[in-house]
Amino acid sequence: MPKCACSELQQERGKFQPVLPSILKKGPAFVKPKLGKATKSVADQATVKKIFPNTYGLPAVSFVKGNNAAVCKKAVRVGVVLSGGQAPGGHNVIGGLLDGLKKANAKNKLFGFLGGPSGIVDNKFVEITPALMKDYRNTGGFDLIQSGRTKIETPEQLAAAKNNLLKNKMDALVVVGGDDSNTNACVIAEYLKQQGVDISVIGVPKTIDGDLKNEHIETSFGFDTATKIYAELVGNIERDMNSARKYWHFVRLMGRSASHITLEVAFKTHPNAVLIGEEVLAKKMTLGQVVNQLVDLIVKRAKAGKNYGIVLVPEGLIEFIPEMKELISALNDALADHEAALAKLSSLAEKKEFILEKLPKKLADLMKSLPAGIASQLMLDRDPHGNVQVSLIETEKLLVEMIKTRLAELKKAGKYTGKFSAITHFFGYEGRCGVPSTFDANYTYALGYNAAVLALNKCTGYLSSVKNLTKKSQDWVCGGVPLTMMMNIERRKGKEKPVIKKALVELKGKPFMHLAKVRAAWATEDLFVFPGPIQFFGPAVVTDITTVTLQLEAGKKIK
Amino acid sequence: MPKCACSELQQERGKFQPVLPSILKKGPAFVKPKLGKATKSVADQATVKKIFPNTYGLPAVSFVKGNNAAVCKKAVRVGVVLSGGQAPGGHNVIGGLLDGLKKANAKNKLFGFLGGPSGIVDNKFVEITPALMKDYRNTGGFDLIQSGRTKIETPEQLAAAKNNLLKNKMDALVVVGGDDSNTNACVIAEYLKQQGVDISVIGVPKTIDGDLKNEHIETSFGFDTATKIYAELVGNIERDMNSARKYWHFVRLMGRSASHITLEVAFKTHPNAVLIGEEVLAKKMTLGQVVNQLVDLIVKRAKAGKNYGIVLVPEGLIEFIPEMKELISALNDALADHEAALAKLSSLAEKKEFILEKLPKKLADLMKSLPAGIASQLMLDRDPHGNVQVSLIETEKLLVEMIKTRLAELKKAGKYTGKFSAITHFFGYEGRCGVPSTFDANYTYALGYNAAVLALNKCTGYLSSVKNLTKKSQDWVCGGVPLTMMMNIERRKGKEKPVIKKALVELKGKPFMHLAKVRAAWATEDLFVFPGPIQFFGPAVVTDITTVTLQLEAGKKIK
Repeated sequence: MPKCACSELQQERGKFQPVLPSILKKGPAFVKPKLGKATKSVADQATVKKIFPNTYGLPAVSFVKGNNAAVCKKAVRVGVVLSGGQAPGGHNVIGGLLDGLKKANAKNKLFGFLGGPSGIVDNKFVEITPALMKDYRNTGGFDLIQSGRTKIETPEQLAAAKNNLLKNKMDALVVVGGDDSNTNACVIAEYLKQQGVDISVIGVPKTIDGDLKNEHIETSFGFDTATKIYAELVGNIERDMNSARKYWHFVRLMGRSASHITLEVAFKTHPNAVLIGEEVLAKKMTLGQVVNQLVDLIVKRAKAGKNYGIVLVPEGLIEFIPEMKELISALNDALADHEAALAKLSSLAEKKEFILEKLPKKLADLMKSLPAGIASQLMLDRDPHGNVQVSLIETEKLLVEMIKTRLAELKKAGKYTGKFSAITHFFGYEGRCGVPSTFDANYTYALGYNAAVLALNKCTGYLSSVKNLTKKSQDWVCGGVPLTMMMNIERRKGKEKPVIKKALVELKGKPFMHLAKVRAAWATEDLFVFPGPIQFFGPAVVTDITTVTLQLEAGKKIK
Repeated sequence: MPKCACSELQQERGKFQPVLPSILKKGPAFVKPKLGKATKSVADQATVKKIFPNTYGLPAVSFVKGNNAAVCKKAVRVGVVLSGGQAPGGHNVIGGLLDGLKKANAKNKLFGFLGGPSGIVDNKFVEITPALMKDYRNTGGFDLIQSGRTKIETPEQLAAAKNNLLKNKMDALVVVGGDDSNTNACVIAEYLKQQGVDISVIGVPKTIDGDLKNEHIETSFGFDTATKIYAELVGNIERDMNSARKYWHFVRLMGRSASHITLEVAFKTHPNAVLIGEEVLAKKMTLGQVVNQLVDLIVKRAKAGKNYGIVLVPEGLIEFIPEMKELISALNDALADHEAALAKLSSLAEKKEFILEKLPKKLADLMKSLPAGIASQLMLDRDPHGNVQVSLIETEKLLVEMIKTRLAELKKAGKYTGKFSAITHFFGYEGRCGVPSTFDANYTYALGYNAAVLALNKCTGYLSSVKNLTKKSQDWVCGGVPLTMMMNIERRKGKEKPVIKKALVELKGKPFMHLAKVRAAWATEDLFVFPGPIQFFGPAVVTDITTVTLQLEAGKKIK
């Protein structure tokens, strides 16, 4: 177990008792599941049903008041595993799960598999006792049992997982993860059913990226805290910029597959420009067009005497630009096809020259137009599979370099007389393990407690669902959503696979529509907002409010 | 004036009323200055006295209770200017100053010069009314009147400043700044005295770097808040690292001339390694030795199965390494001497080759040993004076590249079998404009109020001094320290200049001695502390505690 000297805040915040939704308050003995109609997957129903014959079409579950002491009689053993990247509140999922189980029956036991799903395959776990849990309540991080990225997919892995769960006499397994990890939870649930093994598998929706949501899951946990931390930093930078008035700041924010984080941070801070990957893709913008759009803004502000500003950039921007996605894909192929020949060339310049000849002219020209540093990153930084590591590309620096070049041209042509001095930032790891906000502390505790109730009721193949999140936590609505219901078939690494559909920023959705309405004013009028750090004590207006995204989706009006 | 939509926190925190030291509580009419003995400068007394004949040797001022209604009778006009980099609490200095003046006489007026000292020369200012002040109380940033880096030094600048101060019928000028700005405040005070102009000049000690302190100034404002913000981020990264257990994080922290910030953040977070520039200099370490020291730790932790860790690096490290300082200086000279010849060469490789021949062999070898990216930064990133821009050098990336090379050698030799995957961060701008902590909100308000009292009592050439800072703010001790008292003569840009002596990390001082005692345990035992975000409400233990550095200097024991 990791040791740590508790900070003062950790000690004080440890005393916070999350507020449960009313329906769960008296404990699992007073909650009964109510089954809805049979469900179907969001798309590709026939294929998904074929892959998940035993877990497809399950009814949605909602919880209602009622005597359910029966499910509390027998003592049960439950395993929990944290899967994928960290998100604030993971420890409170475990705390809620533990408290729900213990409330049902003091003899119930909770076990944490260590280091992610590989802990199930390797049978590494620890019992989560109330004493062990104590120092981790309302804390950030996954360090209680750590996390990992292993997927349990091969026949050998599945068999090992089954054997270990049986050997340890587990009655249920709770998988805390994002879309991929919850898809995997469903694979395990289906496998166990097929094998006639009576062990429930329940998922919990986690990811700071905010891209695991749908009509039944209003948000994934961690998104609220992470965006508040990034917004604190962006707000501080805005205030610095607005005081010094001599720099343009380019801030890249985590979130590769979707731009929800960038959008939410923009709502909280009102930057001068914000790039949304999904919009760039929908408009089929070229890199040059993205750059020119920013250059236009810089020139416009310079004319108003404002040689400063702030731009938010989503981490995944590059892949949303069609021509860049094409280039990366072509580079991946060319680098793999000519590995031997490339190895014989000693300098990067020679390698680049060699590869340029192998690319279609359009892409070679694009590659040539990139700043040298970025072109090198595209050539050199490759993952163990030989692919370009998109997450390492410093898009904010790429944009700055290309903007500088364009501004120099405009200056030469007498069309720009301002000054452009840029500072770049990237925020990602800073937000994944922060102390969970009151919203996330309550939400994760409820998700965990709710997962305990689902497990006790023998539900399997469900995602723990807590809804009505813009209301007070007492009024949240609890239940379970069949995992298959959220699935469709996607092509991954050349194979058709059933996966939980990723929620991208919808251009017709309320959040983006709001941005479209307000961003012109942000661009020129300097309407910066400085949110400051997350508060855990004090007036409810500073401690309890959740994301603007959730509020807009719930139909609230935002200034 | 900048517009902004106030955040919820800004609105709530705006209501906070800073707690004044008891001595100031009843207002300037009830405080009398008590003069101490004549003072002398910390060094070079004869030279400093010669340069400041009218402001040298002034007695230290302390405040005692007593009837002083006389100084409140006549209405006065006071100017305030923010100088240099932003620091949290600047607005509260202005708020304290305004309240102190208005308490003395409702007709007193405060004016803010805009955009730093150039606002005095250009006569640009705004009246700071209570209504204008309202939205800025307890906020971060300098955006109320902005800041700038102009020094008022030439005869023309000094004359323009004098004329504008006279034209606007100013009775006093308050300069909020770091060591250089306060040196400049003394230059202005001396000039006005020499010219027979009866306008007081008072300084206020500002800098997040923490390097403006001495026996009379326990700390500069902003250091507390900035280090708390950086510590929040470093703590979050530690928790992420301790959850994922697969990365080494290298965090560079602002603070070029001194390593106080890095030291304080280390005290708050217990990283595995922390580099202190002053120690590197004292031990005359080479870059290779710095790298090897970290490599030893990485190898040691890998043997214990820990392929993760965190290292804090002060921004100014490079200049503390004697051979690197020599290289940068030689490069500055060589690049200047051969500017024309270099301009004719087209590629960076050619330029580098050319310059290497001009360097002494030892330095050329050092340059060759640097990673390509860093060598390019040294060649390309130059300030308007043609000097290498040390603050742009990504020291954390330099270290990572050199560590990788060394680890590869060790791996080849069979002496290392671990994995090394590194992530780098730089935090600076994120902390300069944060919402001031309760300590900084109180401290800056007291410094401003105290400056008003000094001004009303016609003190000139003094720094506003508030001491006893580890006690409750009611018990703080107020007064004024002659600016010349803190001066010595230093060589700046080839000239002997009187300057306020910069406070470096003292290797025999209590803070560093404490680090020396505890760091071995931090290196291997993973004693990480996760401080979390600054809290403005809630238990005093999370809102009111100031820096570990101040506590250690005051003789407190720290775990």
